[in-house]
Amino acid sequence: MKTELTLLRKAMQEQGIDVYLITMDDDHQSEYVGDHYKEIRLISGFTGSAGRLVVTMDEAGLWTDGRYFVQAEKELSESGIRLMRMGRTETPDIMDYIAEKVPEGGRLGLNGRCTAYLEAVSLKERLEAKGAELVSDTDLPADFWEDRPKKAAEPIFILEENFAGESTASKIERLRAELQRLAAKVHIITSLDDIAWLLNLRGDDIAYNPVFRSFLIIDGESIRLYLDKEHLTEEVSDYLSRLGVSVDTEEEHFYEAVKGLKEGPVLIESGKINAACGFAISKELKLIDRMMPTTLMKAKKNKTEMANLKKAHLKDGLALTHFMYWFKENVASGELTEWGCVEKLHEFRAQNEGFLGESFSTISAYGANAAMCHYSPSMEHDTPIAPKGLYLVDSGGQYYEGTTDVTRTWSCGPVTDEERTSLTLSVIANMRLADARFLEGTGGAALDYIAREPFWRRGLNFDHGTGHGVGYLLNVHERPVGIRYKAVPERQDQYPFSEGMFVSDEPGLYIEGSHGVRTENMLMCMNDYSNSYGQFCRFEAYTLCPIDKYALDTSIMEERDKELLNAYHKKVWEELGPHMEGKEKEWLKDMCEPL
Amino acid sequence: MKTELTLLRKAMQEQGIDVYLITMDDDHQSEYVGDHYKEIRLISGFTGSAGRLVVTMDEAGLWTDGRYFVQAEKELSESGIRLMRMGRTETPDIMDYIAEKVPEGGRLGLNGRCTAYLEAVSLKERLEAKGAELVSDTDLPADFWEDRPKKAAEPIFILEENFAGESTASKIERLRAELQRLAAKVHIITSLDDIAWLLNLRGDDIAYNPVFRSFLIIDGESIRLYLDKEHLTEEVSDYLSRLGVSVDTEEEHFYEAVKGLKEGPVLIESGKINAACGFAISKELKLIDRMMPTTLMKAKKNKTEMANLKKAHLKDGLALTHFMYWFKENVASGELTEWGCVEKLHEFRAQNEGFLGESFSTISAYGANAAMCHYSPSMEHDTPIAPKGLYLVDSGGQYYEGTTDVTRTWSCGPVTDEERTSLTLSVIANMRLADARFLEGTGGAALDYIAREPFWRRGLNFDHGTGHGVGYLLNVHERPVGIRYKAVPERQDQYPFSEGMFVSDEPGLYIEGSHGVRTENMLMCMNDYSNSYGQFCRFEAYTLCPIDKYALDTSIMEERDKELLNAYHKKVWEELGPHMEGKEKEWLKDMCEPL
Repeated sequence: MKTELTLLRKAMQEQGIDVYLITMDDDHQSEYVGDHYKEIRLISGFTGSAGRLVVTMDEAGLWTDGRYFVQAEKELSESGIRLMRMGRTETPDIMDYIAEKVPEGGRLGLNGRCTAYLEAVSLKERLEAKGAELVSDTDLPADFWEDRPKKAAEPIFILEENFAGESTASKIERLRAELQRLAAKVHIITSLDDIAWLLNLRGDDIAYNPVFRSFLIIDGESIRLYLDKEHLTEEVSDYLSRLGVSVDTEEEHFYEAVKGLKEGPVLIESGKINAACGFAISKELKLIDRMMPTTLMKAKKNKTEMANLKKAHLKDGLALTHFMYWFKENVASGELTEWGCVEKLHEFRAQNEGFLGESFSTISAYGANAAMCHYSPSMEHDTPIAPKGLYLVDSGGQYYEGTTDVTRTWSCGPVTDEERTSLTLSVIANMRLADARFLEGTGGAALDYIAREPFWRRGLNFDHGTGHGVGYLLNVHERPVGIRYKAVPERQDQYPFSEGMFVSDEPGLYIEGSHGVRTENMLMCMNDYSNSYGQFCRFEAYTLCPIDKYALDTSIMEERDKELLNAYHKKVWEELGPHMEGKEKEWLKDMCEPL
Repeated sequence: MKTELTLLRKAMQEQGIDVYLITMDDDHQSEYVGDHYKEIRLISGFTGSAGRLVVTMDEAGLWTDGRYFVQAEKELSESGIRLMRMGRTETPDIMDYIAEKVPEGGRLGLNGRCTAYLEAVSLKERLEAKGAELVSDTDLPADFWEDRPKKAAEPIFILEENFAGESTASKIERLRAELQRLAAKVHIITSLDDIAWLLNLRGDDIAYNPVFRSFLIIDGESIRLYLDKEHLTEEVSDYLSRLGVSVDTEEEHFYEAVKGLKEGPVLIESGKINAACGFAISKELKLIDRMMPTTLMKAKKNKTEMANLKKAHLKDGLALTHFMYWFKENVASGELTEWGCVEKLHEFRAQNEGFLGESFSTISAYGANAAMCHYSPSMEHDTPIAPKGLYLVDSGGQYYEGTTDVTRTWSCGPVTDEERTSLTLSVIANMRLADARFLEGTGGAALDYIAREPFWRRGLNFDHGTGHGVGYLLNVHERPVGIRYKAVPERQDQYPFSEGMFVSDEPGLYIEGSHGVRTENMLMCMNDYSNSYGQFCRFEAYTLCPIDKYALDTSIMEERDKELLNAYHKKVWEELGPHMEGKEKEWLKDMCEPL
């Protein structure tokens, strides 16, 4: 058993707490969090990015999902903590488990700043129903966590209007108009990408996500922004002051300000503010609980963002295509490795002007490793690439001109028939989805069948969504659009499509122990034409990088599939060709020739 | 202004009611209701089947949807009642309108027995927020409605197990097991098709829907059924008594029994019980509000029902095909009319053993009339059929072996290119949807694109769902499955598909003033095979009737479309051919020859 688990139980006993819940959230309900927040790793040793830990005086369980079963089993093996495999019938629901374990009159402890308000309210109700109590202002591991990493507070920079496409003043005006429409007096925003989008500011507090830790309260007259003083440069301070944003560098003052709100209704999104914030709002005030207006505004890219994203995808596509050529030229040597490829691809991307870093940890996976959807190599865990079979690379960049996310799978030498079939199916599915035509207002659930059909007809499937929204120089996973046939309510990715929505198209296939394939392009939703039936839309693929046509089985492609691939390759050649030279250019030309 | 509106206002004044709401519901939240419930027709003259009427002392508005705008405008023209066109931006939401019109301290009146509990609760909350009151135990028109039609109470009959496929005892046992699983002590069912399904009984109280007016309360030990004594035959009384169902012939005793419930939790579906029932439940008892278990059980047809439905569709297909042949033989005479065709088709259906009547009012529409989706001819409003253009017939039958619903569109003589294109698109869409392959658990929203795609790609659309569930000798519209790309929450038709779900497939196209086409088959969801990815499903088309291939434009059909149509025609010929003779058989053979 880990010492920290013993220390936690000791602290629980001292504070009269029967059950303690630790989440993997930060103060802002971010998808990814800084090391400061990794209390689960401290107590249990589990290093995955999704999980919840429940500790009683004599039991402890870690709830996580299928991606992490193998890893968690290993990491928890001597921790005294039981792995709770979510989705399995034998695994109790974590809420039911907690409700059962807290005795009548007992106390559940958690850190309300790192728990969603929505969740805490529901826990509170269940506990009160059995006469138990929720104690939400604790952070027990804080007391015994030595050398706990500090919360990040990197300098912020301004995203100029030629990149953002809309002035901050205009965004604020639109948000205030929306508050008026909803009859909301005041609005609390704590989600970091919403704040970054609204203020045309970016930071560097979370790896890959160019956001900065902050809290914001806006009403008809004032905007109050709470962040650490280390975030501020003189330029940013001046900028905020010109916008009429009053800055407070004490985090505690945010909670005091929330507590001090005198007039409602207060617009919040209860799944996107933490419980400490939610409970701080006076019970006297009416709450309007709904998706933040900025979430939808940010999802609809404006004309400037669309034009910039094309530029970003040209740069990024060139880097990836250079890498693909380099790979093809060198793989026969037998000296390439997965991690070496990560570094090489980074080199190519870093040559681009305006490149700020990767948009997520690069997946560079050879052979059977690619069958693990969330596999990432590292310097310590590297695999050599042999001159046969398939290699999969899923990566993206952050640029002033936006965020990219692209996956290609290509051959390293001879490939088996099964590998060919798999790759071809992912290409067919990808191209057909990109070719959809639909009425504005169609949701991603209605479009997913296009990509699933080639697999389903053959008794195959891939166990992840086909697409997710992507931010503009923001998070690579962005609500509220996506392409997914089965609704997963907590993903909130079923919002209807309209022009400017930017979504990935990434069908794949994963054959355990053998190989994995995925073909991913970013699609922009565009207005096609409108008539008496309404506004028709189509997608435009922004991603530019050839498909390895020599690794395909063209016999399973219908005529329309060949036409779609040829049209895509024609575009890739027209866009990338002029930037290539010599043998590489010849290679690209050949790669883009029609089937 | 109609006298009845004046009388209503007088009654409102006498009872101190500021605003009065009249719905089109019966006591059971049925989709279609008996004449007894048509108070809106009495007060306003509006005869459509969907609408809500709000009356204040100086205003009155009828809210209805797009299907009825033209008709309502005409019928309301001298009523003093304003038409409120739902879906138009200028039309206020009816709830907002009511909340605004009821003054502070004022009173809203409605008949709680003919209003969903869900809706009444929400109205009550809004009114109380402004210090106003909901009076839900009124029925003001009852006092001045002379010669009001009585509530129907036709004799009930037993659906034998060779038709129902499961004994009533087994259904009751399954329902009780589900109550136990949900930890519900008692369950109230007032929706008529749920009661009919559970008890293997059928009636004739609502046109086309073989149900009987009743209320049911079930717990672990007892079942109490409330209905009129006119419903009962000696056989049915004995049957119910053998099942341990105690029968009470006083409707009022149902409400008293609900009021008298002492132990919860009570399982209800708040959108499917009336407000009088909902408000009668003691506030002390916990409510479990969710879809009735019987709704899902009934939607999944069992093996016997599936086999019977095939028989019903063979009979029904023969009748429709005989009618089609008769039509084609006689249309050149110029003497056919829409209503004449309704009668003739009924004649053919009535020759079938086990035919109990139509499953809805037959749509028999020639030329431009077919562009109106909900058009029905009558003896008084008939249209002659000329020997050119297209004829659309949408009809269905009720049999002991189940319920049918089928639409065909065929030529009456020469057809225009536009008519050909329209019909062909509906056939392509219909056949492709029927050919879907999907994982169990896929919802109708994910499948709709298949049928929409041929239209959307050409900038066309049809403004109705592509499919709805159908009951077994029950309602022709049955929750909870359907095929619809845009969720309409109140339809509750987005439940995931699994084997036994029975759904229509009816894409169409409607060109105002010109023509309308629709091709509708009933599809049964079947298990295909299962593997490590899960259970794969496919549809089987149960409907058997040729498509008018001579009215198609085969140049817009892809190879796969021709193959699908040929395969369907092969099946039609194999199933119907053996039952045909002479010239009709030759005609069918030709009609079913491959393209």
